[in-house]
Amino acid sequence: MTRYYEDLTVGDTYETGSYTVSKEEIVDFAEQFDPQPFHVDEAAAEESMFGELVASGLHTLCLSVRLFITDFVQGEEGVANMGGLGMDDLRWHEPVRPGDTLRVRAEVLKKTPSESRSDRGYVDFRRTVHVDGAEVMSITSHNIVRRANAEE
Amino acid sequence: MTRYYEDLTVGDTYETGSYTVSKEEIVDFAEQFDPQPFHVDEAAAEESMFGELVASGLHTLCLSVRLFITDFVQGEEGVANMGGLGMDDLRWHEPVRPGDTLRVRAEVLKKTPSESRSDRGYVDFRRTVHVDGAEVMSITSHNIVRRANAEE
Repeated sequence: MTRYYEDLTVGDTYETGSYTVSKEEIVDFAEQFDPQPFHVDEAAAEESMFGELVASGLHTLCLSVRLFITDFVQGEEGVANMGGLGMDDLRWHEPVRPGDTLRVRAEVLKKTPSESRSDRGYVDFRRTVHVDGAEVMSITSHNIVRRANAEE
Repeated sequence: MTRYYEDLTVGDTYETGSYTVSKEEIVDFAEQFDPQPFHVDEAAAEESMFGELVASGLHTLCLSVRLFITDFVQGEEGVANMGGLGMDDLRWHEPVRPGDTLRVRAEVLKKTPSESRSDRGYVDFRRTVHVDGAEVMSITSHNIVRRANAEE
């Protein structure tokens, strides 16, 4: 079953399953996209403000998108997501460390029908990432969602 | 030479070198972090609003961070970046396609000294991503930058 624009209600919330990130994944990701010493080098990380090796915040964001897509958008009650316009209010509250298990909570924050295109609407999702119950990241995404009954 | 908080001036701009992204990288990234049909399946992508396979916007963001870090933060006149607080105003203006060559332009937008910690200041960077001169993505990042002369 797919949820279209009309099927989403402001205030609806969804919690994903979990994903545990390894030290190898943290280093591999950072070497590709964010090769700063505190993400790729344990000795250098001890001298950083983090005091230990931590995941790139970008990696935390990517893992949260993965959970949002696989468990929510492509889940049993999926969402007819057509694409994304952008994101706002990305904040990293706590670093993610090797072995941490992440979960994502997503809430429908706002709905705006498209004025120019009858086949879609815009949906803002507030997404928060949690490790052991503590919020480590938060973000608002602006998505494009297909309507069930496109008007001419 | 490293540029500390004091060495950055609002209005300073920097342009990175380039990075060309392949179809294989686009699909590989999307399979890991954003496995939506229009990022991993050419036939499905033709039926999507994009009309062809396009990179995940998250991939465009990751590639732009890579260029920002390797060419600017870790470049010849590097930046004493201690970490990131968050990002705002992420907008995808145009999709990135296989074979596209990306460049990043970064501008120092705002500087705020830390009130509680004498060893650092906060610097906002406006970053834009360009393909063949056209802006495909823009974002504002909030970074923590070390001061050259920490006051007690």
